[in-house]
Amino acid sequence: MADRIPVERLREFAARVLLALEVDPAHATTTARRLVDADLRGRTGHGMIRLAPYSARIRAGGYNLRPAITVVNDTPVSALVDGDNGLGQVVVTQAVELAVEKARNSGIGWVGTVHSNHAGAAGVYTAMALQAGFAAMYFAVANGNGMPPWGGRERLLGTNPLAVAFPGGDQPPFELDIATTVASHGTIEVKARAGEPLPEGWVVDFDGAPITDPARVEDGFLVPIGGYKGAGLNFVIGAIAGVMTGAAFGRNVVEFRHDHVTPTNTGQSILVFRPDLFLPDGPYDARMGAVLEDFRSSESSTDAPIRLPGDRARATAADNLANGIAVAESVLAQLRQLADELGVEPLPA
Amino acid sequence: MADRIPVERLREFAARVLLALEVDPAHATTTARRLVDADLRGRTGHGMIRLAPYSARIRAGGYNLRPAITVVNDTPVSALVDGDNGLGQVVVTQAVELAVEKARNSGIGWVGTVHSNHAGAAGVYTAMALQAGFAAMYFAVANGNGMPPWGGRERLLGTNPLAVAFPGGDQPPFELDIATTVASHGTIEVKARAGEPLPEGWVVDFDGAPITDPARVEDGFLVPIGGYKGAGLNFVIGAIAGVMTGAAFGRNVVEFRHDHVTPTNTGQSILVFRPDLFLPDGPYDARMGAVLEDFRSSESSTDAPIRLPGDRARATAADNLANGIAVAESVLAQLRQLADELGVEPLPA
Repeated sequence: MADRIPVERLREFAARVLLALEVDPAHATTTARRLVDADLRGRTGHGMIRLAPYSARIRAGGYNLRPAITVVNDTPVSALVDGDNGLGQVVVTQAVELAVEKARNSGIGWVGTVHSNHAGAAGVYTAMALQAGFAAMYFAVANGNGMPPWGGRERLLGTNPLAVAFPGGDQPPFELDIATTVASHGTIEVKARAGEPLPEGWVVDFDGAPITDPARVEDGFLVPIGGYKGAGLNFVIGAIAGVMTGAAFGRNVVEFRHDHVTPTNTGQSILVFRPDLFLPDGPYDARMGAVLEDFRSSESSTDAPIRLPGDRARATAADNLANGIAVAESVLAQLRQLADELGVEPLPA
Repeated sequence: MADRIPVERLREFAARVLLALEVDPAHATTTARRLVDADLRGRTGHGMIRLAPYSARIRAGGYNLRPAITVVNDTPVSALVDGDNGLGQVVVTQAVELAVEKARNSGIGWVGTVHSNHAGAAGVYTAMALQAGFAAMYFAVANGNGMPPWGGRERLLGTNPLAVAFPGGDQPPFELDIATTVASHGTIEVKARAGEPLPEGWVVDFDGAPITDPARVEDGFLVPIGGYKGAGLNFVIGAIAGVMTGAAFGRNVVEFRHDHVTPTNTGQSILVFRPDLFLPDGPYDARMGAVLEDFRSSESSTDAPIRLPGDRARATAADNLANGIAVAESVLAQLRQLADELGVEPLPA
């Protein structure tokens, strides 16, 4: 592990790499920001680790670097953002901003994306809604299939992530950010880069035997949370983020880790809503604050206090913001090579 | 197991029992219908098995039999139904009908309930939305706490169920109906009545050891699906159905299996939406039909074809509708006693 790198430095570096690849300047800035947002929250599988693969895809012609991102089928409560094969972080950021605006006016804003791309950590987008004072649910179709329907053998489902956030009143908010598989490809890649075996229960072969070698993941499939229940939730996310939006889901998902050229037609969807939708005269904050306090102060089974979803991510973010982000040496090596190839000033050694 | 009883007969019997207990006639009819809807779909833990406990609660004064159910905080896309401590099936049925109406006009209708009660099988309510041509998500706070927050020891969470349904175009629809715990209290009660042990993984004690004796469930806690992920989803459902609505969640949940008197202030919430919200010009049906067909026809790991969520429930419902519902002998015995006590014509022996 290298020295910790200041957040602003990472953002600048990522933006400069994207600019050197001729990405639209505003899009480079937004993408750099979202990548570092993921690292900040400890979602290292969706942070700077993605810059090299994104760059490879850009150089292979897999992205539209000057997309005409448009809003279609607009209603007071919903819209579809057509990303025109632009960078996913840019498309989804626009979708979140639009959903927040609709929620402000109508109580609810539900915005989908089509012709988008991989957009990274789900919780980054619900955090944007939280920042604006709203609750949110985010759904995305993963950019590769690693799991069959329950009882099946054909991989038609991805790690389809779900993030949900609620403002906490006088308590820190609640922020859930999960894959509906036990492990995501990002998490597996972090293990692979660290040279560690996978815990049993993450990946199984078609006879149900555990696969613990990260290099053998393709010989089996990712395990859903709760068996048929998690496989069902995974489909729900795909239906919302893929089928409803006109994006890929199932057989037409593009394996973007292997195919750098075919447009992925990725879909995401964010439902932003006033947390006081049903109780507009003020009690939400006090009610949620009291519940969160009850939960956080309840008896723990360890010496540490109860941690609710999002608590660790926010603590990590505060620490990373103050002290810089520790980027893995294998990622730094990739970034040095990228900087060298593009003539961009490298990150500090 | 007794002979199979025609659906209409069960509905009439349940309604007559509720009428004899002085429930509002329209409410008796609706409640009877929803209970039998659950049995029809094979959700026997939420069907006729509940009539005796509901009756005990009614006789103990735990329900308002002439509730003034009101709609408050009404917007074009949302509302709160105050159930005035009426029967849960009645309150939620009204919420679903209102949400469908809003979805028809606005694309989205999200309706919560407060001062409601146990309303039975989640999938029954999303099926109502499906029937009207809409997709839906249903969230409910369970009427008892059986699970601590992840890493904790105080039971603050219930089995909080989630149901999600999507119209299938020319394919049968997709209908997920799950507890966010591995097993629900209803499922456990079915095992207990059958005199069968619980499978390992359903309930554990505070040291993590499995509990398989249904009588010892209270010595431990229900296991969430996917560890912290399922515990987090469980909280999300409670936040939507409980905190946002003004209903009970966490410490103020009433254990309605033991306390027949205290108003439960149960909360539910149903989000009904046009499945073509983002693609209003028609492609939804063909897209969803193709995806469902891809999934259902994909390679199975057994000799039976792939079954998606809802497929078994609908097959069971069709069979039950044609041939009658098989009610467990232990339930029939309770119902005979109830009929006797209330002077209601009993079900056939």
